Amino acid sequence: MSTEFSALLQKVHQLHDLDRAAQLLAWDREVIMPRAADEIRIQQMTTVRRLLHEMFVADEVGELIAGAASEVQGLPEESFEASLVRWLAYDYDRTRKLTDDYVRREAETSGRAHVVWREARANNDFASFRPLLEQMVALGREKAELYGYDEEPYDALLEGYERGTTTAEVRAVFDAVKAETAPLLQAIQEQGRPVDDSLLHQPYDVERQKEVARYLAEALGYDFGRGYMGTAVHPFATSFSRYDARITGRWYPDFLPPAILGVMHEAGHAIYEQGTHPDLARTPLARGTSSGIHESQSRLFENIVGRSRGWWRAHFPRLQEAFPAQLGQYTAEAFYLAVNKVQPSFIRVEADELTYNLHIILRFELEQALSNGELAVADLPAAWNDKMRELLGIVPPDDTQGVLQDIHWTWPSFGYFPTYALGNLYAAQFFAAACREKPEIEAELAEGKTTTLLAWLGENIHQHGRKFTPGELVVRATGRPLSHAPFVAYVTQKFGDVYAL
Amino acid sequence: MSTEFSALLQKVHQLHDLDRAAQLLAWDREVIMPRAADEIRIQQMTTVRRLLHEMFVADEVGELIAGAASEVQGLPEESFEASLVRWLAYDYDRTRKLTDDYVRREAETSGRAHVVWREARANNDFASFRPLLEQMVALGREKAELYGYDEEPYDALLEGYERGTTTAEVRAVFDAVKAETAPLLQAIQEQGRPVDDSLLHQPYDVERQKEVARYLAEALGYDFGRGYMGTAVHPFATSFSRYDARITGRWYPDFLPPAILGVMHEAGHAIYEQGTHPDLARTPLARGTSSGIHESQSRLFENIVGRSRGWWRAHFPRLQEAFPAQLGQYTAEAFYLAVNKVQPSFIRVEADELTYNLHIILRFELEQALSNGELAVADLPAAWNDKMRELLGIVPPDDTQGVLQDIHWTWPSFGYFPTYALGNLYAAQFFAAACREKPEIEAELAEGKTTTLLAWLGENIHQHGRKFTPGELVVRATGRPLSHAPFVAYVTQKFGDVYAL
Repeated sequence: MSTEFSALLQKVHQLHDLDRAAQLLAWDREVIMPRAADEIRIQQMTTVRRLLHEMFVADEVGELIAGAASEVQGLPEESFEASLVRWLAYDYDRTRKLTDDYVRREAETSGRAHVVWREARANNDFASFRPLLEQMVALGREKAELYGYDEEPYDALLEGYERGTTTAEVRAVFDAVKAETAPLLQAIQEQGRPVDDSLLHQPYDVERQKEVARYLAEALGYDFGRGYMGTAVHPFATSFSRYDARITGRWYPDFLPPAILGVMHEAGHAIYEQGTHPDLARTPLARGTSSGIHESQSRLFENIVGRSRGWWRAHFPRLQEAFPAQLGQYTAEAFYLAVNKVQPSFIRVEADELTYNLHIILRFELEQALSNGELAVADLPAAWNDKMRELLGIVPPDDTQGVLQDIHWTWPSFGYFPTYALGNLYAAQFFAAACREKPEIEAELAEGKTTTLLAWLGENIHQHGRKFTPGELVVRATGRPLSHAPFVAYVTQKFGDVYAL
Repeated sequence: MSTEFSALLQKVHQLHDLDRAAQLLAWDREVIMPRAADEIRIQQMTTVRRLLHEMFVADEVGELIAGAASEVQGLPEESFEASLVRWLAYDYDRTRKLTDDYVRREAETSGRAHVVWREARANNDFASFRPLLEQMVALGREKAELYGYDEEPYDALLEGYERGTTTAEVRAVFDAVKAETAPLLQAIQEQGRPVDDSLLHQPYDVERQKEVARYLAEALGYDFGRGYMGTAVHPFATSFSRYDARITGRWYPDFLPPAILGVMHEAGHAIYEQGTHPDLARTPLARGTSSGIHESQSRLFENIVGRSRGWWRAHFPRLQEAFPAQLGQYTAEAFYLAVNKVQPSFIRVEADELTYNLHIILRFELEQALSNGELAVADLPAAWNDKMRELLGIVPPDDTQGVLQDIHWTWPSFGYFPTYALGNLYAAQFFAAACREKPEIEAELAEGKTTTLLAWLGENIHQHGRKFTPGELVVRATGRPLSHAPFVAYVTQKFGDVYAL
């Protein structure tokens, strides 16, 4: 490759290596570091992140990008070189839009908001969090203005997590999901057979849970030779390269799902990163392309694969072996039904596959109203509860189980929540396309195998990393833009079966 | 504090934070990272280290140091500010002496030497390693010239690990150790009673070993609330701050000492770092002052404490509890004797407390001859074997167990070996001074306690971090310069007892 692109690539490698060092400081903080080191570690992280920011927004980087851009003009859009320059130009431009002053104020307010929120949630005291949340909302609106937008302020925020996707597009699919989920949920509650999930609530030895988690992650296709499983209070996945994509799990002594479904979720994220093409190494393209697409991979492995009848028919015996006293007397079918129990609940992270999206839609709608100035923070708890009643038919008894439950607004990350539900929609759309192209996927899955599915995902999604926007990727992989239909078809079929509707 | 010092301190914090990020990349590589990521991780480490070097040797840093230097002139030598400026001026000056070209060539040759050495050691093939070692020796000599020296080239290399200590000083104490060790070793071999260490060679459950290791490290005074114990093939200790000083251990299924003595060794290193004064945080002063002083702390806890009769009288019951089948029928006295068995052997890292220094003296003498040009690499294997015969009375059957055993010359780290033995001498000297000042230390130790010893070390050594050179520190702490006498007195007394001489 030419000189100008090489010079850019060298700089990109440097920046990316430093970025991964910053990420390791963060990973280690969650998984390994003693709590006593928190204050110093935050300073270390801040130093490296600041340095990285300074180095990236330097004029020199803009010149390198511009120089390389003219060089790669003749290359195909999907070439590594053209894709890298395209991403960098985009990211450089966007990053420079935030002023130093804004970044400093956001970091400061976020730090304080986090502390106050934790207290407020513990004490069910929204009033104490309200002033900070007002500042966070104001910052969010300021940020939207700095970034700029065509239609509505929320577009600018969503863009940070789902490049190229507009609020209007998301609204359209979410409205459809809402409309189609309601009757299904009603039918389950009114005429569905009862599902017993008490077998999940038993004492489960933690070391055995870890063994089972490893077994399941490996069965999905997660490569432990290029990974690591640690323990974290709030599980997550992180990668430092395709050769080192890590997962975490948490282990409750008397509740099994986090160890099995939670770990399969994180394994889905990590499988995506393990599948990025080697040529993308040490560049920002060696990552999942967006939060929503990332979530599609974790949800696909957690739900579509990991909550399927075939999966448990094949792998439940291994669980019985690990926990003979707890599971010996149950059938794979009973286990399959238990992990698919639908029940409206207050807490998003505990929600089932069907009601989960409704929790997200609630937040999506409230975030828009906040960022448009249509809703005041003072009125947020009431608005929250109204929407809970409307969408899920229940009202939380207090704000701790309502508006105060999520950490996200202290980061602040307005625009992030929708990607969770987008992940569910993308997952169903990808899976349907994969099965259309490779019908053997369903037969394999009925035997607990993912070989062909994994190959299809690798070919159509994983290897591309961040080369394409989510919108481009979904069209390339499935032949059509994002749609609610595959998801609705999937849940209708599945819960019709589970609840014998 | 004044403006110029503050400006310097801000820069120092930035550099130190970045330095610790680089260190975390290295720690993680040894303890957590999957092997598949090795190549990319090396690139990440190289990027961060290079960036750090560039940032440190910038003219701007020199100006900041000079500015602060004039400001702190009135302050006491032992103040944080004066000590920091003194260290930085020293380090800045020394670091700038190595040319970029030299650093690049050293890194390249070292990388190749490491690979070739590993093969050569496996195949007992010194000839294949010889050309690389010749290059490493030439680089060592070139480095000595770049740094400059007063008396002999080796001074410049030793300085890198033991600031302010000359080859002549080390030679004097080593010659004394050699002279005094020989008759003691001879007496043990000729008239000593046999010591049975077969109890150490039994099957030991690895998870139990880890529990025992934790127990012993904690009993020494290592604070797990500001630490972490991992597993590594070549155990080491690393700190990211006084709030996060980590140890590693390795666990053989049928040999106990690495889990107990090895972990106590690493705990000694980490206790030193945990004891640095909080004011030194995020600066290069928040570290042990030299390799030798660091080794003194690890050796003190491993040997003087951890191989003492009182220690095992107090803690052997815990070992018996963990390993009733293996140790139930033995006495604490038998265990004490077993961990103190003296036996000349080929491999340095397996040597006992008495013969260990002789392995080091051998390397120290050969390194000087190599760096003076008195010894050619071609003649090194023969010289090695001659010295083994002279010092230990045995000759290795092959180079794998002789001249090829250590990794150090591939780094290259000529000048590092002596610090291992200096650590033993310092340890004895510190311990003797501590007992003179606080006679209760010996009574406590007889009960397996380290409270007063730890307090004395904290006050006289740990808290100072890198404020003083090793030479300054030993005089401050013990009232006299480095001497062989306390070590000789210690081993004479101890092995006279163990071997009933």
